[in-house]
Amino acid sequence: MTGRFISLEGGEGVGKSTQLARLAEVLRARGLTVTVTREPGGSEGAEAIRRLLLEGDAGRWNARAEALLFAAARADHVARTILPAVAAGDIVLCDRFLDSSRAYQGAAGGLADADIVELHRVGSDGVLPDRTLLLHLPAEEAAARSAARDMGGADRIGGRDAAYHAAVAAAFAGFAAAEPDRFRTVDARGSAAEVTDRLVGALADLLP
Amino acid sequence: MTGRFISLEGGEGVGKSTQLARLAEVLRARGLTVTVTREPGGSEGAEAIRRLLLEGDAGRWNARAEALLFAAARADHVARTILPAVAAGDIVLCDRFLDSSRAYQGAAGGLADADIVELHRVGSDGVLPDRTLLLHLPAEEAAARSAARDMGGADRIGGRDAAYHAAVAAAFAGFAAAEPDRFRTVDARGSAAEVTDRLVGALADLLP
Ligand SMILES: Nc1ncnc2c1ncn2[C@@H]1O[C@H](COP(=O)(O)OP(=O)(O)O)[C@@H](O)[C@H]1O
Ligand SMILES: Nc1ncnc2c1ncn2[C@@H]1O[C@H](COP(=O)(O)OP(=O)(O)O)[C@@H](O)[C@H]1O
Ligand SMILES: [Mg+2]
Ligand SMILES: [Mg+2]
Repeated sequence: MTGRFISLEGGEGVGKSTQLARLAEVLRARGLTVTVTREPGGSEGAEAIRRLLLEGDAGRWNARAEALLFAAARADHVARTILPAVAAGDIVLCDRFLDSSRAYQGAAGGLADADIVELHRVGSDGVLPDRTLLLHLPAEEAAARSAARDMGGADRIGGRDAAYHAAVAAAFAGFAAAEPDRFRTVDARGSAAEVTDRLVGALADLLP
Repeated sequence: MTGRFISLEGGEGVGKSTQLARLAEVLRARGLTVTVTREPGGSEGAEAIRRLLLEGDAGRWNARAEALLFAAARADHVARTILPAVAAGDIVLCDRFLDSSRAYQGAAGGLADADIVELHRVGSDGVLPDRTLLLHLPAEEAAARSAARDMGGADRIGGRDAAYHAAVAAAFAGFAAAEPDRFRTVDARGSAAEVTDRLVGALADLLP
């Protein structure tokens, strides 16, 4: 069977990690081989870069250095985890991918979208997911879910202000509108089970 | 007085680090304020990335991830060390800079030169040294000097084979030919004092 590469995107607290685990379970119950991974990270080198990105104070890196570090981590992750798993026929489910860099370091961080995409071309030949599932939740609900989860202990990026997170959400919506074949925007309200059903529906054309 | 940004380039063992220290001494004796720095590294964030680049086994990073990590380190180094020092009127002497990435990850590592330059544009607005001093030494002499220095304990990049180091030297020569205003190629044979005199001469038009 043909492997597939699927990314989950959306701001902090929309339910990506929760849904990734649930989706993996549903697909495995259908007999599919699933590789679950995440960004930044997902390979040995990329996890080392992840520590540089998420530790330290908010101003540790400027947006340009941050974008290059994400692209470096992604290059390692794509070459060493994602492409080999897809080649082996797996369904690869990835918690955040390129579109998060476009939203965070690009739209919210001030870098040009074309430059973020260019870094991905140099690092990873511009590999894109077969499908990107964008979880959408009203800002207040996402903030409430994140706050309950983190109990005030957010990391370098999650801890930024509301205007930053609003810019991120608007950017994701714009990317989805520009690439309707790759993206499906999924309502993230309601119970986790309801959201999972919607996500499975949004993959129907890609699964056996 | 106007600050200056000067890089020293050349393969392993040509005498860059030795000459950087000597050149700093000569310029300080003339009353100039000198900032001595190096790549990868030269700022807190870039030194953390340096550890990722130089530790681990030879295949730890592919050429693309390596190029992105160098560009990330350079972006931090330029923004936080080099540009502030030049703005303060210092003479900045830097042990390796962009041209080393062009030679190692580009010419010898298989990436397109235009892509390396592009990463530097995104990361650091394409900032170039006012002068690049290229130390040139016949390959056998450079290898003998490095071997004596390292006693067999070279790092991830220094430890690569002779064909790799020959490709690096040829690439540096090509860059110098293409940008004669920025580059000066300096004969690195003879005593350290003789080489320092040549380097000071190659900076005459830039110094007060
Ligand atoms: N459908 C849901 N309803 C209520 N809470 C949810 C739902 N999905 C996830 N959560 C909770 O919201 C928080 C954020 O979810 P998480 O999956 O960590 O989001 P993300 O990975 O997108 O930041 C977690 O505490 C999670 O348990
Ligand atoms: N002019 C010279 N003659 C002989 N040995 C030298 C000379 N310059 C440097 N060396 C020695 O050669 C080795 C390599 O020099 P180094 O400055 O570390 O080179 P690089 O920084 O270019 O790799 C060191 O052991 C250094 O002491
Ligand atoms: Mg998560
Ligand atoms: Mg040296």
